[in-house]
Amino acid sequence: MALSTLSTAKAHGSHRLLLSPLPFPISRRSAVGFQKTHLCPSNPLYHSNSLASAVPMPVSSTPSARHGGAVRSSLIDPDGGALVDAVVPPTERAARRAEAAALPAVRIGPVDLEWVHVVSEGWASPLRGFMREKEYLQSLHFNSLRLTDGSVVNMSLPIVLAINDADKEAIGDAATDVALVGPGGDFVAILRRIEIYKHNKEERIARTWGTTAPGLPYVEKVISPAGKWLIGGDLEVLEPIKYNDGLDHYRLSPRELRKEFDRRQADAVFAFQLRNPVHNGHALLMNDTRRRLLEMGYKNPVLLLHPLGGFTKEDDVPLAVRMEQHSKVLEDGILDPETTIVAIFPSPMHYAGPTEVQWHAKARVNAGANFYIVGRDPAGMSHPTEKRDLYDPDHGKKVLSMAPGLEKLNILPFRVAAYDTVEKKMAFFDPSRAQDFLFISGTKMRTYARNGESPPDGFMCPGGWQVLVSYYQSLQSEETGKQSVAMSV
Amino acid sequence: MALSTLSTAKAHGSHRLLLSPLPFPISRRSAVGFQKTHLCPSNPLYHSNSLASAVPMPVSSTPSARHGGAVRSSLIDPDGGALVDAVVPPTERAARRAEAAALPAVRIGPVDLEWVHVVSEGWASPLRGFMREKEYLQSLHFNSLRLTDGSVVNMSLPIVLAINDADKEAIGDAATDVALVGPGGDFVAILRRIEIYKHNKEERIARTWGTTAPGLPYVEKVISPAGKWLIGGDLEVLEPIKYNDGLDHYRLSPRELRKEFDRRQADAVFAFQLRNPVHNGHALLMNDTRRRLLEMGYKNPVLLLHPLGGFTKEDDVPLAVRMEQHSKVLEDGILDPETTIVAIFPSPMHYAGPTEVQWHAKARVNAGANFYIVGRDPAGMSHPTEKRDLYDPDHGKKVLSMAPGLEKLNILPFRVAAYDTVEKKMAFFDPSRAQDFLFISGTKMRTYARNGESPPDGFMCPGGWQVLVSYYQSLQSEETGKQSVAMSV
Repeated sequence: MALSTLSTAKAHGSHRLLLSPLPFPISRRSAVGFQKTHLCPSNPLYHSNSLASAVPMPVSSTPSARHGGAVRSSLIDPDGGALVDAVVPPTERAARRAEAAALPAVRIGPVDLEWVHVVSEGWASPLRGFMREKEYLQSLHFNSLRLTDGSVVNMSLPIVLAINDADKEAIGDAATDVALVGPGGDFVAILRRIEIYKHNKEERIARTWGTTAPGLPYVEKVISPAGKWLIGGDLEVLEPIKYNDGLDHYRLSPRELRKEFDRRQADAVFAFQLRNPVHNGHALLMNDTRRRLLEMGYKNPVLLLHPLGGFTKEDDVPLAVRMEQHSKVLEDGILDPETTIVAIFPSPMHYAGPTEVQWHAKARVNAGANFYIVGRDPAGMSHPTEKRDLYDPDHGKKVLSMAPGLEKLNILPFRVAAYDTVEKKMAFFDPSRAQDFLFISGTKMRTYARNGESPPDGFMCPGGWQVLVSYYQSLQSEETGKQSVAMSV
Repeated sequence: MALSTLSTAKAHGSHRLLLSPLPFPISRRSAVGFQKTHLCPSNPLYHSNSLASAVPMPVSSTPSARHGGAVRSSLIDPDGGALVDAVVPPTERAARRAEAAALPAVRIGPVDLEWVHVVSEGWASPLRGFMREKEYLQSLHFNSLRLTDGSVVNMSLPIVLAINDADKEAIGDAATDVALVGPGGDFVAILRRIEIYKHNKEERIARTWGTTAPGLPYVEKVISPAGKWLIGGDLEVLEPIKYNDGLDHYRLSPRELRKEFDRRQADAVFAFQLRNPVHNGHALLMNDTRRRLLEMGYKNPVLLLHPLGGFTKEDDVPLAVRMEQHSKVLEDGILDPETTIVAIFPSPMHYAGPTEVQWHAKARVNAGANFYIVGRDPAGMSHPTEKRDLYDPDHGKKVLSMAPGLEKLNILPFRVAAYDTVEKKMAFFDPSRAQDFLFISGTKMRTYARNGESPPDGFMCPGGWQVLVSYYQSLQSEETGKQSVAMSV
């Protein structure tokens, strides 16, 4: 299953494309694309995670003993030393299912299920389930967890499960384990050694988002309707989580990704997190990263193009459309399929800016990426009630570069790319001729696509653009259809 | 000056008192007063700061080389290895003052001046001034700073200086240093190698307090009226900060405190932070701590009774009254002056619960305390707009016990003490006979004092209580006076 994605990418005529020149010759200016964050150079007291440690490391031919031998981890260790695997082995599933049927049952929602998926595959390693209060408090206050050996792992988002008063009462005081029942009514998992504690929503929201303004998408979707208790415990997931949406083959687990990186003999893996269509600015950044890694002496850097697949806000482009768009980007040769792996990151989106970007990076460490690209305003959005970005667009990369537990990851902060109206292509923004650059926001892009207008030449490959145009036009005809129905009543 | 406080305490007939029995025989129940926090015993993955490392350590006779020889640090190292001293040496003051007069000037407020005081004496070591953005972001997101050697120190409150647009414009782009002018118009300090960055008040408040509800005292006093820029830099303070309020002799610096602990040959120092009058519940807790430390093998544990002296909210008891009350508690023999040092902690109060208690503990590490007592709801208050505590009363001790950078400190979490109506004294609350206990809140205490009523026998020593009664009665006559004036207009 894992390999079907990869072969899909390869089937798209990559060999032909490899012989063609890249559509956007990499300009000399892009050589300064890697931009170190300017963090208080006058004060040498503090230390940042940076490129400093990025010396090429040979691919070791044997897994080190600490990985338990289960997964080769040539480039970077998973947090806590071993990937969590919370899926019950096939031979034990019948027994666990029978056990689950006899336990107090807790019904979970679609986003909770995404978290079960995330934890079950080890993206949140060493977390083995939903947080108990001790992990929750460390996450909220320190964005990290301290392990028993004194080491620290990053953990910036509370991964928690809320229950209501009725659930709590039904569970009672004596139960130590509960069964989790999915949105479809099926048993999903057993939660072991439970701990129930208070869900102070106001505090959780304020400390996670740095605001309590109404209109935060994850808050409105998940937290506001949730109960006032949290239930923590270790997960035993009864079956691998599948969505049956035609995209499951893109959902490679950290274990599968690590195997694939090894199979390709990658000596560097650079991850690119995104929740939007890939435009040529993104591509510039990814291709420039590869070029720089080759210059640094790496022989086989591999790009993990890693769109987020869980909950996103209403006006984001849906996952299926994005996956189709990403395929076109590879087909059109904007990215090289030979050195790119496209897979889905199953996490839901918080839109929590500097807090969330740490989660995005940490999860990719667990998947085996040792380089992480971070651009302008990662995981950011507009302030829901004020006319400004919710986060300072530079805070994401600054916070990420100092985040506890991510010292081993090479952070690649990038300048923003914009459309250069003189060169007629996406390029790194050059403040000395700011007037030549056009910033094409998501809103602007959607307006173009909705109106059937073309964006400036060179903004996005034609195949990818066509996917968006079709999507927005289908949306409109759907809306028109709905309106007609509404009017005919 | 340092010693005058200590001699004041000693002058209060301590030798006589030492011969008297303590007014409240320590009950057997108090032996369980030391209560370990119950942090998720089912999950052995994580580690708490605790009493585990609290084995008696001999007082070393020579300071270790890393302390720079300046201050003996027998019991615990200051954060970063050396205490910051940002006060300009006397011989250089004239030159620095002349230099300050030629620099762009920034006017600071009374609470800013308290922070200058705090930083100048090294309470916030290794912080050498107001935070630049890099420290600010680490404090907001991680409650800690990572030093260049990779070690981590705790830093939970942003120690920042706000300026407005006019200040920023007056400073201009070229200046690297500015002069700070105190509320009285005098030059207070030079701020070196400045960095000006945005002051996102909403985010700062949400991440520090876990709420943005209106009515947070520090927010209303300091943040809301402040400018929308922050200015960081290293401090050079022109003179030691003095308040000339008759209490400066109580304001011992961390350096002076460490010297005094050494002079007394303390082999353990346990700090007690407070912003309220000392009642017999507090005393029980402090005396019980001493007893337990002796049981553990320490020969000479010394109590640092350390009231907070900076900004407090309107309805807290003013510092001068509290200091008088604390004197009476020592005079009345409730605490033993021979083994107690009373000094003022010059920090302003944030009322930020679990976030602030870390600051309270960290500053005491710098002052040489290696044990820190934490009770119910430290640095907490009522939610400003809802009928509940702002923080879960147990979160303070839990967060403190896991706080990064405080692993070297022994945290002593205590159960709450309340008035035992059967035994007629303050005692550790016993949930098995909850009906016997009376919780006397600050509000209740003030009501008693205001009405000239006596609290239950054994709640507070008579001398201390009389100080409060006089204070509240003077307040009332002042109010009556004001009202008469108002009516006569």
